[in-house]
Amino acid sequence: MDLPLDQVMHGISLGAVATMAAAGVLEAGRKRFDLFGMVVVALAAALGGGSLRDVLLDRPVFWVADQTFLIAALLAALATFFLARVFVLPARLFLIPDAAGLALFTIAGTKVALVWGAPWLVASFMGVITGVVGGILRDVLCNEEPLVFQGSLYATAAWVGGLVFIGLFFLDIDPRLAAVAAGSIIFLLRVAAIRWDIGLPRFRTRPDRD
Amino acid sequence: MDLPLDQVMHGISLGAVATMAAAGVLEAGRKRFDLFGMVVVALAAALGGGSLRDVLLDRPVFWVADQTFLIAALLAALATFFLARVFVLPARLFLIPDAAGLALFTIAGTKVALVWGAPWLVASFMGVITGVVGGILRDVLCNEEPLVFQGSLYATAAWVGGLVFIGLFFLDIDPRLAAVAAGSIIFLLRVAAIRWDIGLPRFRTRPDRD
Amino acid sequence: MDLPLDQVMHGISLGAVATMAAAGVLEAGRKRFDLFGMVVVALAAALGGGSLRDVLLDRPVFWVADQTFLIAALLAALATFFLARVFVLPARLFLIPDAAGLALFTIAGTKVALVWGAPWLVASFMGVITGVVGGILRDVLCNEEPLVFQGSLYATAAWVGGLVFIGLFFLDIDPRLAAVAAGSIIFLLRVAAIRWDIGLPRFRTRPDRD
Repeated sequence: MDLPLDQVMHGISLGAVATMAAAGVLEAGRKRFDLFGMVVVALAAALGGGSLRDVLLDRPVFWVADQTFLIAALLAALATFFLARVFVLPARLFLIPDAAGLALFTIAGTKVALVWGAPWLVASFMGVITGVVGGILRDVLCNEEPLVFQGSLYATAAWVGGLVFIGLFFLDIDPRLAAVAAGSIIFLLRVAAIRWDIGLPRFRTRPDRD
Repeated sequence: MDLPLDQVMHGISLGAVATMAAAGVLEAGRKRFDLFGMVVVALAAALGGGSLRDVLLDRPVFWVADQTFLIAALLAALATFFLARVFVLPARLFLIPDAAGLALFTIAGTKVALVWGAPWLVASFMGVITGVVGGILRDVLCNEEPLVFQGSLYATAAWVGGLVFIGLFFLDIDPRLAAVAAGSIIFLLRVAAIRWDIGLPRFRTRPDRD
Repeated sequence: MDLPLDQVMHGISLGAVATMAAAGVLEAGRKRFDLFGMVVVALAAALGGGSLRDVLLDRPVFWVADQTFLIAALLAALATFFLARVFVLPARLFLIPDAAGLALFTIAGTKVALVWGAPWLVASFMGVITGVVGGILRDVLCNEEPLVFQGSLYATAAWVGGLVFIGLFFLDIDPRLAAVAAGSIIFLLRVAAIRWDIGLPRFRTRPDRD
């Protein structure tokens, strides 16, 4: 807790990038993409959300400005690829690191938008975008209905955590503490939702298009 | 007609955003997404086209600069969600407001690009992008073949109306009048195409990939 | 070889745009899109990769700044559309111009990123993005699993060629010569991979999500 905030956020972002790249490789592997196809899906999953946030805010895109993120995503993707050839990894195993990645990305994205000067509602959506867009890109590239939308408090957990972070931020709580608290809320909500299959209400209109 | 043009365009854009958000909720609802998934689809449908236009033109993204649009999209999405739980809404009901949204977005997008200084052909495409990209995003997120491409003079109606608006603009017609005229053309072309099933020619190459 | 480099790169980019637009029309035609839907797919295929590169690098988007590219893509799309109504064109015919487009786009994208000052790893990915994103967009819009990922050294060929170009660039080789050499490598790798069905290793995790 004595590290300066920027280093903490940098480490958090690197961890999120690596986690999402690994989850992307596992998803793409189930589709029999080749090695490079998997790397592309992994990079889209790892870098997509933050890139969209930076483009919408008109900031320099984080991984163009700092190659470390690109290298971390590549190494994580390759490591997962080779691990998965040696061991048979169940895809569900990665729901846990995926939840961690969601929490880390959402907090990082919300903070970037707040510091940039976005109004609070926009900042909370930038957090959600940073957290979920990578996974959406991954699923669209793999031609699957995005898991994010079907699932157990995915974007909702991110949004709740982002709003908590924004509240603590405006209350002048130490941002490292706020990040840990809000990130934990996202992670625990998501894991609880997977474990007990909690979800938001759904509805159906009359299906008359088909 | 005594309102200043900027207020008129702002009102038009707010109406288009709300309409597209409502249509997005109805589409997502047919897929059994949860409440938040639907909100994400609604926001992508409502804000996607204008965001892409602003990013391509390197302008500040409209809903990041002005939270009103984000709030309008959210309120429209939530209202539609709860209405659709009370009443069974036929999905086809929304083809009419969707046509209105297409007209409003296309005119707003074309005008923004012209004022920004884009050449006329680029401006006409910016109008079409603003009008149709939200619906494309919505359908891709829902893993459907985009309705825009199958349908009865969708993008075509938008392009024709955009070109009419550009012509009137360069003839120095009052832009409010030009917006009403060109918007009506888009709306009526689209409604007529739905009603009488009018379309452009199609073709098929030999299907030898599958 | 006496032409100035900028004119050579401009010609290369125009050729790549036209080629990709034609391939987009053929893909969309197999889906029974209408004429305008096909034009939209063709434009996304032809302009998507370069647009994403320019947005990520925060440069002016190439076809917004210079209408020639938009006009070239439109003309190529319309010509292909009418040709395909007169002659029955086998879709596989276009694997060759598609390979040429991949080579041209990758080299153009890598060079733009290098000149802009991107670090070499980022520049190599910008080349790959320029080369493959158009095709990915095309396949996602057509609701197909992107061909790029399944296929025979597609992105891999682009990346190898981009790295060769970067190597020659830093060795101060005449950039026209470097472009020809690296572009030929991409084209020949891709054609050889199609001809002899060469690919990278694949893997599968346990399919337990469905």
